[in-house]
Amino acid sequence: MIKGCQNECTGGGCSGETGKQMTESFKASDLIITPATTFKEKPDPTGLVFGTVFTDNMLMIEWSLASGWEKPYIKPLENLSLHPASSALHYAIELFEGMKAYRGVDGKIRLFRPALNMDRMARSARRTTLPSFDQNELLECIRKLVEVEQEWVPYSTSASLYIRPTLIGTEPSLGVKKPTKALLYVILSPVGPYFASGSFNPISLWADPKYVRAWKGGTGDCKVGGNYGSALYAQQEALEFGCQQVLWLYGEDHQITEVGTMNLFLYWINEDGENELATPPLDGIILPGVTRQSILDLARNWGEFKVSERYITMSDLTAALEENRVKEMFGAGTACVVCPISKILYKGKHLHIPTMENGPELTTRFLNKLSDIQYGREDSDWAVLVS
Amino acid sequence: MIKGCQNECTGGGCSGETGKQMTESFKASDLIITPATTFKEKPDPTGLVFGTVFTDNMLMIEWSLASGWEKPYIKPLENLSLHPASSALHYAIELFEGMKAYRGVDGKIRLFRPALNMDRMARSARRTTLPSFDQNELLECIRKLVEVEQEWVPYSTSASLYIRPTLIGTEPSLGVKKPTKALLYVILSPVGPYFASGSFNPISLWADPKYVRAWKGGTGDCKVGGNYGSALYAQQEALEFGCQQVLWLYGEDHQITEVGTMNLFLYWINEDGENELATPPLDGIILPGVTRQSILDLARNWGEFKVSERYITMSDLTAALEENRVKEMFGAGTACVVCPISKILYKGKHLHIPTMENGPELTTRFLNKLSDIQYGREDSDWAVLVS
Repeated sequence: MIKGCQNECTGGGCSGETGKQMTESFKASDLIITPATTFKEKPDPTGLVFGTVFTDNMLMIEWSLASGWEKPYIKPLENLSLHPASSALHYAIELFEGMKAYRGVDGKIRLFRPALNMDRMARSARRTTLPSFDQNELLECIRKLVEVEQEWVPYSTSASLYIRPTLIGTEPSLGVKKPTKALLYVILSPVGPYFASGSFNPISLWADPKYVRAWKGGTGDCKVGGNYGSALYAQQEALEFGCQQVLWLYGEDHQITEVGTMNLFLYWINEDGENELATPPLDGIILPGVTRQSILDLARNWGEFKVSERYITMSDLTAALEENRVKEMFGAGTACVVCPISKILYKGKHLHIPTMENGPELTTRFLNKLSDIQYGREDSDWAVLVS
Repeated sequence: MIKGCQNECTGGGCSGETGKQMTESFKASDLIITPATTFKEKPDPTGLVFGTVFTDNMLMIEWSLASGWEKPYIKPLENLSLHPASSALHYAIELFEGMKAYRGVDGKIRLFRPALNMDRMARSARRTTLPSFDQNELLECIRKLVEVEQEWVPYSTSASLYIRPTLIGTEPSLGVKKPTKALLYVILSPVGPYFASGSFNPISLWADPKYVRAWKGGTGDCKVGGNYGSALYAQQEALEFGCQQVLWLYGEDHQITEVGTMNLFLYWINEDGENELATPPLDGIILPGVTRQSILDLARNWGEFKVSERYITMSDLTAALEENRVKEMFGAGTACVVCPISKILYKGKHLHIPTMENGPELTTRFLNKLSDIQYGREDSDWAVLVS
């Protein structure tokens, strides 16, 4: 059993509630495993479109208010049979996580700080009034699923097996209320390198305050469906303006918050002339990304420059660009690890971000460091062995 | 065929796009009707819990980017078979509508301003990047469904058949993108009187700025799932404080915006000493409710008092309460028509709203007027015959 939760969870996610829920949760030791007997062909991971191919099996656990959690099942991937009134389909009572299994240079399969995902999933469940569960039990069920599907973990250090835990309300009635039925499931999808060429492809961003991703008092700090569906329209508009992603702004002063579905980092010489790595603080509108946390942890451990969780406005950025104080800007997330930013379209002007001209030295250093841990080139507590 | 859309739609919903989509939409004349041959027992509508019992049949129409809309089907109600990666389940790419069919005192079945629902549904579809459709064709399909299920429309002038059109993304992949597959379906549920006693039961509200329903630049003006799932947590907290619904506040000045899932009206003597019916303006964070619009239309037509779409803050309200200027306060929505408010818990204080002491005269007048139209006691363009 993976004991990740004890090591890593912080804040309200694990502590306090774990004990109370322990007896109520499903248990990995109850797993009923009836794997597929026919197998899909495993695709070449280099040509894959993200999240389009799934493995042969899935994890599924049902919950009801009346009976609590049922036994967990690992069984062939199949369509869900859902009542058309299911509350996930009407009221977005739903959440998910995104994590990966990596096949290391030593042939062993690893997860990366999975307890942080379990912790965030528990917080998302609380925010959406979906049932709580024991995070270690779920992590162990996921580990077993990956073990069953281990041949699906690409034999490549530029590909991985994406893991998608999902929890949905299946209440079959139209009242807007805490669901009395829910379904937790996990599906797996082999994914190729984010950057097909093997090198960085910097992205361009569209920054317009007319769409707002998340707000104080909302759900921007949880990984819930509503944060994503509402973002597509802006994403389309970004594409129409020739940009690849949305730079989400917030407030009258146009604070920069997130990039598409990634956290955002700025490496610059700040207003006080200090080398600083900055990312917006977790003030309720920022998703607490695992990659975000890991970058902060690494940079603080290195101790070579100032590391800040702070507000950055568009006028802070434009002033710094004019004064040549910007070094690198990048998105950070599970899919790409880090993603350099080269351009921002803001108020009709194309702002050039000199990320690539500057190496990108720091962005590359984070990518290499995190990849080394994920693929077992470097020992780390953050890498958790699957088998 | 119901020709409601030409009469009623305003703004961007119908105009402009209708012509373009006409050839691409499904057509009611293509309906394939294979109704259920076994029938559920129809319940006594007086004892029903909202949205828990469904009729024997449903409408279903599939869409794909490759083939466009398929033929519409009316067929027995059944579970949906959805790929576990379906984008509605992960990214809340989903929307719905709420409308009702009423059995009038003349035995005829009527819808109430259904074109407004179709118009809003089209706007919600655009906002969530779901496929567009011809609103008249959908309305005609719904009319046919209600006709097939006409015996399910309660023989009662205090009950009705709730209609739930739903449109979900069924894209079977995990990329956050405009879906290439979608499903439109409509289910029906007989619903009893909102106020079981037949008279008004006023509700108490919990007003705390720490949860915010919607934000400028978000999706609060569309009927999309994400607006609802994110509201449950606050609703639970309201219950813990002994209140029945959330009074949603907005901004530093604590503007009052909506009540639970209803629009909000205040009938008072305003700051200038005028009798005024006020409701927040459609500035992007307010759902453009059909009942809201109808109340405004009626009141403006009466011409007996000032009718305003304007901002009202909690301090406006508390000042008015101190000066005995508040007459009535009520929520408005399809489920209850109007719902009187008697109490607001705000900053630890219980504010008494004298709605019931004042009749509630105006609230009752709206209820009676709208019910008269819905149940055919009064002729109106707003009532559209089903058969």
